[in-house]
Amino acid sequence: MKALLIIAHGSRRQASNDEVKKIATQIREHGQHDFDIVESAFLELASPLIPEGIEHCVKSGAKQIVVSPYFLNSGKHVTEDIPEIIAEVKAAHPDIIIEVTPHVGSSPIMLDLILKTASGS
Amino acid sequence: MKALLIIAHGSRRQASNDEVKKIATQIREHGQHDFDIVESAFLELASPLIPEGIEHCVKSGAKQIVVSPYFLNSGKHVTEDIPEIIAEVKAAHPDIIIEVTPHVGSSPIMLDLILKTASGS
Repeated sequence: MKALLIIAHGSRRQASNDEVKKIATQIREHGQHDFDIVESAFLELASPLIPEGIEHCVKSGAKQIVVSPYFLNSGKHVTEDIPEIIAEVKAAHPDIIIEVTPHVGSSPIMLDLILKTASGS
Repeated sequence: MKALLIIAHGSRRQASNDEVKKIATQIREHGQHDFDIVESAFLELASPLIPEGIEHCVKSGAKQIVVSPYFLNSGKHVTEDIPEIIAEVKAAHPDIIIEVTPHVGSSPIMLDLILKTASGS
């Protein structure tokens, strides 16, 4: 089984965390994809944290987990904190394939997204 | 003339600010759109700030400015801080049409962006 784990920074404002959870729900229920599991997790300030999110995917039967950093910029969280946490969970789960994709802000689709939003479509 | 002003939070890390400026440059040079001017500005911590960014667009001849909040969540920055600043610049420029689009994180295209990034395309 294959999982997609969307990881965001996490906020003290629960509504912001809920927006991330909603994106995971929308992808799970409506997205065109081959993920059996779609979950979200947070770097800090909110639950579940990344290791818990990975555990949840593993307990749900995931053998492969694609981690998608929901961050706009390639700051320290993306370049250092997330890779460090993922290295630890990989060591704890040597039998699971865990890969981290580029952060969403680096996608070339972002240009199109901005323009489509700007044109009201 | 019509301007697109992408506004991000702003970071003490210059590389993060440069990523936002790069997106504006890429849209300006390669995007399929009808904007005569494409610029970026920041809510705080980086230059130009939003009022300066608006001034720059006006001085470049913009009569209509579309402001695109480059934020993932609808926190206080998106719901209160940016609207307050825009209300002030609107009062200072009653002859310019200034509109704020939804923040990028609210776009339905984000789901597709995450999935395409996750599938390596």
